[in-house]
Amino acid sequence: MTLPEGEVSTAAAAAPAPPAIVLVEPQLGENIGTAARAMANFGVTDLRLVAPRDGWPSDKARAAASGANHVIDGARVFATLDEAIADLSFVIATTRRPRDMTKRVEGPPEGLAELAAVAAQGGGTGILFGRERWGLENDEVARATIIVTFPVDPQFASLNIAQSVLLMAYEWRRVALGALPPEGREVPPATREEVTGLWRHLVRVLETTGYFRPADMEEKMRRNLFNILSDARWDRQQVKTLRGVLAHLGRERRED
Amino acid sequence: MTLPEGEVSTAAAAAPAPPAIVLVEPQLGENIGTAARAMANFGVTDLRLVAPRDGWPSDKARAAASGANHVIDGARVFATLDEAIADLSFVIATTRRPRDMTKRVEGPPEGLAELAAVAAQGGGTGILFGRERWGLENDEVARATIIVTFPVDPQFASLNIAQSVLLMAYEWRRVALGALPPEGREVPPATREEVTGLWRHLVRVLETTGYFRPADMEEKMRRNLFNILSDARWDRQQVKTLRGVLAHLGRERRED
Repeated sequence: MTLPEGEVSTAAAAAPAPPAIVLVEPQLGENIGTAARAMANFGVTDLRLVAPRDGWPSDKARAAASGANHVIDGARVFATLDEAIADLSFVIATTRRPRDMTKRVEGPPEGLAELAAVAAQGGGTGILFGRERWGLENDEVARATIIVTFPVDPQFASLNIAQSVLLMAYEWRRVALGALPPEGREVPPATREEVTGLWRHLVRVLETTGYFRPADMEEKMRRNLFNILSDARWDRQQVKTLRGVLAHLGRERRED
Repeated sequence: MTLPEGEVSTAAAAAPAPPAIVLVEPQLGENIGTAARAMANFGVTDLRLVAPRDGWPSDKARAAASGANHVIDGARVFATLDEAIADLSFVIATTRRPRDMTKRVEGPPEGLAELAAVAAQGGGTGILFGRERWGLENDEVARATIIVTFPVDPQFASLNIAQSVLLMAYEWRRVALGALPPEGREVPPATREEVTGLWRHLVRVLETTGYFRPADMEEKMRRNLFNILSDARWDRQQVKTLRGVLAHLGRERRED
C-alpha cells in the first residue's frame, strides 16, 4: 500500500496495538483454539491464559485453531490474573451486569473505543473472559477498568467463549480501523500494577486506623474502594502523586 | 411514556423487525444449529434454509442449537433462493468483495443501518450466507441489494457460517437498539459541585497535617490534586464513599 508522503507517519502513529485476550482458567483446550481462530480473523494475536485447567500446550487447542498457529504458539501462561494483566493500563471484563458492584458498564463499541484510545497513547490493553461454567468471579471483575456487556436477548443469552472473543475482536478492529488520531496525554496511563499498588497502600492506611467496620463488611468495602480507584484512568504521575498523599497521611499517623 | 399524538405510532413503527437469516444450501446440520444459537442470542428468529443438503428437520441441527429450539422449530425450507427472499425488500449478501461485479459493498454497521431503516418502514429484510465450501455464487450475490464484507485480517480470513451469522445478528441488534438510550449507570455521575466538595475536603485534611510544603508550591499542588479528582468520572455514590474515607482520616487525626 502506498500512501502520499506525510500520511504514512500519521497512520503509523495512530494505529493502536490490539488488546491482549486473557482467558481466565479456561477448561477445554478446544475452546482456547476456537478463541484463537476468532482472534486471528481480526488481527488480534496476544493470547494470555491464566491457569488453564488441562495444562499447556494443548493439541486440542491447536487442532481447533484451524490454522491460527501464530496465536497458539505465542500464547503465554500465567499463574494468576494479577500477573497476566500487570503490564496493562486498560482492562475490560466481559460479563453480565453484576448485581452488587459499582463498576461502569459499557456496550462493546463504547468500551472498545476507550480501549483503543488508551492503546493509541501507548498503554497496554486487555480483555478478560471467564471460565466456561461460571465466568468471572467478583474479585476478578474488580481488577478490570470497566465492564462490557453484550446486548444479548435476555430471553436467550448463550454466548460461548469463542463467540464472545469473536465479537470483541471484531468490534476492536472496527473501532481501531475507524479510529481518529487520539488526544495526546504527555504522561503514559498508569498500569494495573500501579493502580493495585495504590489501592493496597490505601487499604494499609485505613486498616491501621480502624476504617473497616463492621468486620464482616471489610471484603466488600475493600473491593468497592478498588473499583473506585480502578475506574479513574489516571496517568502514572497522578498515581505517584496519590501515593505521596497516602505516604504523608500514613507517616503523620505513625508519628503521632 | 407519553408522546404527543401522532408521534406514538411513529415510535411504535420504528421498532424494526429483525432480518431473516437465509442459509443457501447449508451442508452440515451442525452448522445450521450453531447459526440458530447465534441468532437467538440477539433476538433474531426467522431462519430460512435453501435446499439444505442433508434434508430437514435435522437432529444434529437441534442438538447444536443449544436450546434455541424456537428458531429451529420455526425454520422454513425453500427450494430456491428466489422463493426464500420473495417477500423481502432489502437483502444483504455476506461475502468477500467480488472481483467482477458492480454491486455496492458496505461494512456491517453501514449495511445493517440501511437494513434497519427499511425494516422500520415495514419492509421485510434478510441476510444471505453461502455454503460452507464455496460461499455464494455470483448469481446469488446478484439477488441481494448490497454486499456486506467483514473487516477481517486479509492474512487470516477464516469465518465459518455461525460466526458470520453471529456478527451480523449482533450488529443488527446494536444498530436496532441504537435509537434507545444506552444502558446507563445505576447511580448518576457526580456533579462538579460534589467533586469540588471532595477536593476541598481532601485539601482540609492535608492542610491540618502539613502536606503543602514548600509553601510557594501550595497553589500548584492543590490544583494538581483537583485535576486528579476531576478527571476520575466517579458517580455520586463513589464520591460519597471517598468523603467517608476522608471524614474517617480527618476524625482519626483530631482524636489523637
